Amino acid sequence: MEFSSKLLENAVYEVSQLPGIGKRTALRLVLHLLRQPEAQTKNLALALQNLRSEIKFCKKCHNISDTELCEICANPKRETSLVCVVEDIRDVMAIENTGQYRGVYHVLGGKISPMDGIGPSDLNIATLIEKAKAGEIKEIIFALSSTMEGDTTNFYIFKQLEPYAVITSTIARGIAVGDELEYADEVTLGRSILNRIPFENSLKSEQ
Amino acid sequence: MEFSSKLLENAVYEVSQLPGIGKRTALRLVLHLLRQPEAQTKNLALALQNLRSEIKFCKKCHNISDTELCEICANPKRETSLVCVVEDIRDVMAIENTGQYRGVYHVLGGKISPMDGIGPSDLNIATLIEKAKAGEIKEIIFALSSTMEGDTTNFYIFKQLEPYAVITSTIARGIAVGDELEYADEVTLGRSILNRIPFENSLKSEQ
Repeated sequence: MEFSSKLLENAVYEVSQLPGIGKRTALRLVLHLLRQPEAQTKNLALALQNLRSEIKFCKKCHNISDTELCEICANPKRETSLVCVVEDIRDVMAIENTGQYRGVYHVLGGKISPMDGIGPSDLNIATLIEKAKAGEIKEIIFALSSTMEGDTTNFYIFKQLEPYAVITSTIARGIAVGDELEYADEVTLGRSILNRIPFENSLKSEQ
Repeated sequence: MEFSSKLLENAVYEVSQLPGIGKRTALRLVLHLLRQPEAQTKNLALALQNLRSEIKFCKKCHNISDTELCEICANPKRETSLVCVVEDIRDVMAIENTGQYRGVYHVLGGKISPMDGIGPSDLNIATLIEKAKAGEIKEIIFALSSTMEGDTTNFYIFKQLEPYAVITSTIARGIAVGDELEYADEVTLGRSILNRIPFENSLKSEQ
């Protein structure tokens, strides 16, 4: 692609560095900004810069926060001995939306993925083990994506936790609520039969 | 969506103002930036801001340019009496890529579209008519997208040009009706410039 302007070329290049955005889409977005009032571009640039330079991560759970301690960790009504391990802040938001969880979180910041060069030391695992060592945790719930990387990460942390008296569990893998049985894959269906739960429990959870 | 940080919420909001990017995608992009080195966000913000504040439009053809006159208009080898009317800079880039065109351009900055509240006065049409009035133009090639809005715009300009001795043509309808110009392949686009037809003929063929 040849550009008539260095400024334009530069802007398109920077936007196309974002994941899932190619050069054409980047050009479309940049040209859109040029058609909008200048304030919009200014606000966008400022919001991104402020976020990147001023963002804090909760020192307890590594969730994104504007304060030292995030709202969840600072809430005295939360059970701090029940810790849900998630990949990133989107998962915290998703679980919070269910309104079913009263414990706190621990945000890893990713999954162990040798293919992408992400090892255990790149994630917030050490601080979780520290908390377990200090006896602050009764139960850890693994809530990572059900992928190879997620399972690897679960297993790595599980092994690290062995010396300490911590109950570990994972969120239930099974058929999604509202799904037709015939479209479920074999592995999921197989596991949902192996890990079947008492019928009374399924009634309770819907309340 | 509830966010744990105002800074994050603000950044996601601004990114989601871009066309085709919803809140979820915006969050994904913003979280990606947080995982990258701070320089990347800085460069992105700077590139967008610089583009918006320093961009110039060629005073002759309204193409995006870093200088008063764009490279194409400033090129003495270009036939300045042959003007190709296009919607935006992406179309200039697409036609330049074919290597078939030796004239200059006139960038309208959009199409007449009453549905979107875009009338003739919102586009760079007056300057084109001025050029025709001054006798600077021998031939005008309409190269707008082959959509209802494109045809309307063509026809409007065609009517405005009637008092002046200007040959008008449209690129050949080798491009499928309803297709956007930017997605056309180079061969089709190149041929459609070589085989342009008098504008009156294009009216006949559509009846």
